[in-house]
Amino acid sequence: TQTYNICLLPGDGIGPEIIAEGVKVLNALGAKYDTTFEYTEALIGGCAIDAAGTALPDETLRAAEASDAVLLAAVGGPKWDTTDPAKPRPEQGLLGIRKALGLYTNLRPVQIFNALAGASTLKPEIVDGVDMMIVRELTGGLYFGRRERFYDEAGCGTDGAAGQRAYDTLEYREYEVERIARQAFEAARKRRNKVTSVDKANVLETSRMWREIVHRIHDEEYADVELEDLLVDNTAMQLINRPADFDVVVTENMFGDILSDEAAQITGSLGMLASASLGDGVALYEPSHGSAPDIAGQGIANPLAQILSVEMMLRYSFDMQEAADDIRRAVTAVLDEGWRTGDIKDAETPADKLVGTAAMGDLVVSHL
Amino acid sequence: TQTYNICLLPGDGIGPEIIAEGVKVLNALGAKYDTTFEYTEALIGGCAIDAAGTALPDETLRAAEASDAVLLAAVGGPKWDTTDPAKPRPEQGLLGIRKALGLYTNLRPVQIFNALAGASTLKPEIVDGVDMMIVRELTGGLYFGRRERFYDEAGCGTDGAAGQRAYDTLEYREYEVERIARQAFEAARKRRNKVTSVDKANVLETSRMWREIVHRIHDEEYADVELEDLLVDNTAMQLINRPADFDVVVTENMFGDILSDEAAQITGSLGMLASASLGDGVALYEPSHGSAPDIAGQGIANPLAQILSVEMMLRYSFDMQEAADDIRRAVTAVLDEGWRTGDIKDAETPADKLVGTAAMGDLVVSHL
Ligand SMILES: CC(C)[C@H](C(=O)O)[C@@H](O)C(=O)O
Ligand SMILES: CC(C)[C@H](C(=O)O)[C@@H](O)C(=O)O
Repeated sequence: TQTYNICLLPGDGIGPEIIAEGVKVLNALGAKYDTTFEYTEALIGGCAIDAAGTALPDETLRAAEASDAVLLAAVGGPKWDTTDPAKPRPEQGLLGIRKALGLYTNLRPVQIFNALAGASTLKPEIVDGVDMMIVRELTGGLYFGRRERFYDEAGCGTDGAAGQRAYDTLEYREYEVERIARQAFEAARKRRNKVTSVDKANVLETSRMWREIVHRIHDEEYADVELEDLLVDNTAMQLINRPADFDVVVTENMFGDILSDEAAQITGSLGMLASASLGDGVALYEPSHGSAPDIAGQGIANPLAQILSVEMMLRYSFDMQEAADDIRRAVTAVLDEGWRTGDIKDAETPADKLVGTAAMGDLVVSHL
Repeated sequence: TQTYNICLLPGDGIGPEIIAEGVKVLNALGAKYDTTFEYTEALIGGCAIDAAGTALPDETLRAAEASDAVLLAAVGGPKWDTTDPAKPRPEQGLLGIRKALGLYTNLRPVQIFNALAGASTLKPEIVDGVDMMIVRELTGGLYFGRRERFYDEAGCGTDGAAGQRAYDTLEYREYEVERIARQAFEAARKRRNKVTSVDKANVLETSRMWREIVHRIHDEEYADVELEDLLVDNTAMQLINRPADFDVVVTENMFGDILSDEAAQITGSLGMLASASLGDGVALYEPSHGSAPDIAGQGIANPLAQILSVEMMLRYSFDMQEAADDIRRAVTAVLDEGWRTGDIKDAETPADKLVGTAAMGDLVVSHL
């Protein structure tokens, strides 16, 4: 019997409710495939700030590092919103664990389940066949560069008076671009063999360097993969114009944050999209959506993105491809039968049957 | 008779063809409203690089500064694409003139002409009623912060070897945020009285400062206007999910570049969208689209965004509201009659009548 230790980070809002359904699915598959999943739960985000004064307690980081994979739900909520740089913020938990575990590759698959094709605000013929993988650099750029805010400097306020001034730094080093480019080309080889590299090379120096390095890695190591460059503003347009044309999209951290959410919305069902954050060691899996504090505690949140993040964990961390396929098949079947949580229920389809978080988890388990 | 001197900057690609139609419209309205428009033409972008080795020759800047308003078409093309920091690039002309003229406010109205509602890739019920104004900060942020690329520093290449390293700086000062916030609130008062301020305050220090300042200006000077904050990644989603909900959207330079193009694409007819760049002196007007080098010189480009940028010029620089209304009415009428350039022609609507650039300009003039 193989044993895996999974670090569970429920976080805030609907986090605890949806992660419970991920665990249900893991346990069911453990039984089926003679694998034992053991769990260590730890605090991250707002709940960690409340309990320990910091969004990423040392204990949590140690639990994550000691595990075979991390399953995260979501962090944040209005309770902890602040613009005071001196106060802790839930997102620091997320950013901190990404950096500490060296999770430089964020994979966000964007696909549409047939049963939910109508949920998109785009026309059916436009979203038909959408199947892309956004490869976002996750430990560099504006997210981790030097930043500061000063006060009192002359020339910053109106009419040359004193005022505030702030900066953030977008920085990349050659090896950071090389390794994310390789991840993108590797992903493309397992898919439709095409990479779109997104930058703003007509303005940013980091983008010009990015473009050169991506092309060098391509020419030297992946000449068999089709590569195109697209400016970030143009990409924001083309994702809406011809989303089905994209295969792998690789880009730096901030552009990736914006474009992956845009691409997710194209499906119309954000509650269905999972993500994997990979480095050279332990990896982390989470839904693409947030902590939805407005519906927390009501048992109505959609657990499917969390369950599909378990699918990614089985694929990427444990190489359990059959078990991963089981999850995908089960989720597809449950949707085909018309079971829906509130966020994906279509008011105009009477055949849709509304269920809550736990019932949805049970339905998936029943199809495994 | 009032006389205005307009600096014409045709630029590259389809630029010369479409700007000629803008001039046609100006001349027709000049005759109607007893106003003389005089023109000074100058080089910018790729053509300026070819002729003078720089994308913004001094002569061009002097002509712009001496004018009452600048009408620009578009710059750039594959001929001048380069990632070599030492080589001149067409976009430097655009960025240079924005900075030199202090054009800190970029207004990008996003509206849909009824006749073209079907052009959107979004469902008709989603784009119905879309009418927003993107207010983009245009002379700060990553576009103008310090940037650099080094070579040879240990720790930048693979396995700690030497390699390249680059950075760009996202910087804002208090007065820069104050003045763009005021522009947004002023615009909202003339519209539906609502401002969405977009930032990434959960990560960037500049965004936290942005949010604080926007709220202070709101509370002190524009408490009558509705204000909401939205994170940039969430905005990228909501623009697709519920575009008609937005009125004025204000944001920093790079976010504005991405989101204004995304919003433009929602209409499905980028060839119809104009923009105004305003500062404290001479203002600049241009289409939102690019130089389309692939169709340059064929007489088939859509001149309507250029013509609608003339509408904005008449409104913002010359306070000729009636003449501006004439343009809008004329363009609407021409579209209602079924006249289309190739980019906005719908293959499935046999009533659409295909026309070229000059014929489209003539049609608009005939309706003035
Ligand atoms: C919460 C936030 C810091 C985070 C990010 O911007 O990376 C989130 O939007 C995401 O995409 O995972
Ligand atoms: C050409 C480029 C530098 C420019 C920008 O990014 O500002 C363009 O995309 C725009 O939006 O006007």
